[in-house]
Amino acid sequence: MRYLEREAYDVVLEENTAKQLPARDVPTCPREKLGESCDLVIVVGGDGSLLGAARALAKHSVPLLGINRGRLGFLTDITPDQIEQKVGDVLAGKYLAESRFLLSMSVMRDGELVGQGSALNDIVLHPGELIRMIEFDLYIDGQYVYTQRSDGLITSTPTGSTAYALSGGGPIMHPKLDAIVVVPMNPHTLSSRPIVVEGSSELKLVVTSENTANPMVTCDGHDSVVTKPGDEIRIHKHPHRMTLVHPLDHNFYETCRSKLNWHSS
Amino acid sequence: MRYLEREAYDVVLEENTAKQLPARDVPTCPREKLGESCDLVIVVGGDGSLLGAARALAKHSVPLLGINRGRLGFLTDITPDQIEQKVGDVLAGKYLAESRFLLSMSVMRDGELVGQGSALNDIVLHPGELIRMIEFDLYIDGQYVYTQRSDGLITSTPTGSTAYALSGGGPIMHPKLDAIVVVPMNPHTLSSRPIVVEGSSELKLVVTSENTANPMVTCDGHDSVVTKPGDEIRIHKHPHRMTLVHPLDHNFYETCRSKLNWHSS
Amino acid sequence: MRYLEREAYDVVLEENTAKQLPARDVPTCPREKLGESCDLVIVVGGDGSLLGAARALAKHSVPLLGINRGRLGFLTDITPDQIEQKVGDVLAGKYLAESRFLLSMSVMRDGELVGQGSALNDIVLHPGELIRMIEFDLYIDGQYVYTQRSDGLITSTPTGSTAYALSGGGPIMHPKLDAIVVVPMNPHTLSSRPIVVEGSSELKLVVTSENTANPMVTCDGHDSVVTKPGDEIRIHKHPHRMTLVHPLDHNFYETCRSKLNWHSS
Amino acid sequence: MRYLEREAYDVVLEENTAKQLPARDVPTCPREKLGESCDLVIVVGGDGSLLGAARALAKHSVPLLGINRGRLGFLTDITPDQIEQKVGDVLAGKYLAESRFLLSMSVMRDGELVGQGSALNDIVLHPGELIRMIEFDLYIDGQYVYTQRSDGLITSTPTGSTAYALSGGGPIMHPKLDAIVVVPMNPHTLSSRPIVVEGSSELKLVVTSENTANPMVTCDGHDSVVTKPGDEIRIHKHPHRMTLVHPLDHNFYETCRSKLNWHSS
Repeated sequence: MRYLEREAYDVVLEENTAKQLPARDVPTCPREKLGESCDLVIVVGGDGSLLGAARALAKHSVPLLGINRGRLGFLTDITPDQIEQKVGDVLAGKYLAESRFLLSMSVMRDGELVGQGSALNDIVLHPGELIRMIEFDLYIDGQYVYTQRSDGLITSTPTGSTAYALSGGGPIMHPKLDAIVVVPMNPHTLSSRPIVVEGSSELKLVVTSENTANPMVTCDGHDSVVTKPGDEIRIHKHPHRMTLVHPLDHNFYETCRSKLNWHSS
Repeated sequence: MRYLEREAYDVVLEENTAKQLPARDVPTCPREKLGESCDLVIVVGGDGSLLGAARALAKHSVPLLGINRGRLGFLTDITPDQIEQKVGDVLAGKYLAESRFLLSMSVMRDGELVGQGSALNDIVLHPGELIRMIEFDLYIDGQYVYTQRSDGLITSTPTGSTAYALSGGGPIMHPKLDAIVVVPMNPHTLSSRPIVVEGSSELKLVVTSENTANPMVTCDGHDSVVTKPGDEIRIHKHPHRMTLVHPLDHNFYETCRSKLNWHSS
Repeated sequence: MRYLEREAYDVVLEENTAKQLPARDVPTCPREKLGESCDLVIVVGGDGSLLGAARALAKHSVPLLGINRGRLGFLTDITPDQIEQKVGDVLAGKYLAESRFLLSMSVMRDGELVGQGSALNDIVLHPGELIRMIEFDLYIDGQYVYTQRSDGLITSTPTGSTAYALSGGGPIMHPKLDAIVVVPMNPHTLSSRPIVVEGSSELKLVVTSENTANPMVTCDGHDSVVTKPGDEIRIHKHPHRMTLVHPLDHNFYETCRSKLNWHSS
Repeated sequence: MRYLEREAYDVVLEENTAKQLPARDVPTCPREKLGESCDLVIVVGGDGSLLGAARALAKHSVPLLGINRGRLGFLTDITPDQIEQKVGDVLAGKYLAESRFLLSMSVMRDGELVGQGSALNDIVLHPGELIRMIEFDLYIDGQYVYTQRSDGLITSTPTGSTAYALSGGGPIMHPKLDAIVVVPMNPHTLSSRPIVVEGSSELKLVVTSENTANPMVTCDGHDSVVTKPGDEIRIHKHPHRMTLVHPLDHNFYETCRSKLNWHSS
């Protein structure tokens, strides 16, 4: 804030954030409206904060810049001590703009839409409650893939491939790759493996009648929909994309090395 | 039933099972009492049915024989078409008796016992509800192992090593091995791996204050206890063991080959 | 042969194959020349036979049809008992034509080309001889990724993703996906994972001076080049593509289900 | 050396090591004889140096103490800056003595012994040369387990479970556990998993006639034996054990945390 004001930029604070800060003479704005009035949205927090902003601003074309309050993140790749120099460079026009796609999810029951959501990282079908193993059919582009019994399925973008999908055994996908990965979670069939398909693919998960619980679908670890046997979960690319802004020296593989400890012996 | 009656064995039916069968002139008995009056308990069902019987009868030394209603199971290794010959052989004294250990679990809160259970397969700490990543400290024999953020931890016996723990990436452990395996579920730290320790080990999991949900502990997929931050989950060998009876031609590795499709190219 | 002759097609036998068959009054042709004189090349054998044909015919645009002498293969998806009907359908114009890309590999030493090759499945850097762990640097599109100590690296096309790369822990990639996957083999750094990048990526592996052996590069399990410290292995898409012909009812996921035993409980 | 001489201990230098050091007035001794004349053998180097000493001294009961020249090792857990204090403590009688078992391997051809070796970490069957996939039958305690096609098989002690076997996907086994793990390397059958058996188990690998190459057996990455189809590789516990000495504050899990980066985010 101090830096931006000193440099005489017009600053607008997100409404809820403003409430948590000491009172300032700065205009505020609800999160959903930021996309209309700003040229750049700066998110200060962790990768999770940026995910939330990306979902809220998906309809607008406003680019996002992430500042991590701790160490380097995959999405928030400016650290606190670099703020003045790196934000300055970005505002002076020295930046990389990267386009990332989101996933769109809708749950259909007897032909009616009963829930929907969007995600920058991943859409996860999981047991929701106590009973751990769930069963569902997977279809990709209309073709039957398998009936799976497992702890669930992660459907991830390249952006999400270094998050939850990676813990589940999925591959790292370069951010530029136009692809979606489905990662089975602790599948009963040991030969079930992550499958990478084209970004334009249409996925359909059908909850079978073999479930004693009601599996849930969750977008980026938030917004959940409870399903019933027979429900269809349809997943495909979101019509809008998100623009992520990086300093010029941003390097995806360096972030991997740092976050995944590839340096160390 | 027909076979046993024809051969003039004294047969007692488990109470709840008897209710589901056509009326018969056969004495019945509650499940917990079977261990007092029987020389052998025959379980007809899947591996899950045998797990339930084993937990209920853990205090008694009565041996169990499993008959699978479908295909070969790891614990129920007589198939329907083999009943007459194989059950006959077992009752004629031609059998293998295998001793399997159970795990005992207790949850302590501020020094008070708030829940307990036992398991033949596994004891699983998991998120219970929506929020997926949980955090806990693991101690083995009093030594701090790590603070883990993950979808949970499976603590499994050799018996359970071919069940849920296998889906989670754990090794197969031979039934005779006196060992316990802990299997991290989708851990945040990618270098976290299954750890095999001696069967006499004392495990302690401490739920940290970093959890936004209340993780649950579940025994063999049943009986669950909801935990709170600070709770200690103590796991060690159960004082009683279970005796599993097999036909003489029983072979652990053949069951593996059949159940895990090792035959196929 | 009998079927094709009966239907009055002009048949040419590959030279070496002809030698292994009873003498016939059929013209023969060296493998490399088949692409010039034929409208369709039919490969009878396993997936390995089709890989060899694909590499030999890469320069020509002649399509390949695979007939497996045993069970269903990923590339050779007509079984012996289906020959008359399915080959008949294909020749009558009822087929799916699928375009698959190959990888091109060259080894540079002090600026000189010392070896090259091409592969439809994968290009593997491995120890070659006794000493198992090798060390190399990986660059993707000019960016340094990591210095890896491992048993080697598999670079695979989508076609190869269901072959050796899958045993090494790589994901399944749909044949239509325009991507390359690099799969580390038993890496020393446990957090090293498969990485999927765009099909247009340029990969460079540099053999470091830390190797006591001379690592080898092998294309589709054949043609190998022995490397020395300092050698650069460059891998990118081959300028020519291969056309694979399938019967109309071909379904990639059905082949997966069959070959990987996804059916079974 | 300086420290030990200052403290007036009788020091004997291993012959080959002495040649690499500036001339000193210190008695020397061949490695194999160290076990006869010394009360404690101090190995300065990495884990690999200690493995070599352990194999050479397996027949004697002399304990080993490891000093790592770099960072902490699993077997050499005193770092250079701790030498005076920790070696002093150990020599003053303040230490933990840990007993580790070794594996013994022999290759039989037509009933004749054609090669043998011993290992503290692991015995690995691998292709040896170019051709990557090998085939063998595995028997444990006389029972047929499977016919495997893979890049080989690692048979590991608990000591070796944190070395090569871990890169191959095996579990970590606590050093006190009396168990052996077999880890398939990139197996063709995806459901093939590490198997942990009792330490007293007798393993037998039979090289099948399906191998176009001659697989090799290697002990701790050294001493190799080339096999032929029909050869039997027999593996069981070595009759002698090794005693490893640690400072009193030694903690297996702390070494894991440090070496495997369990600390990090």
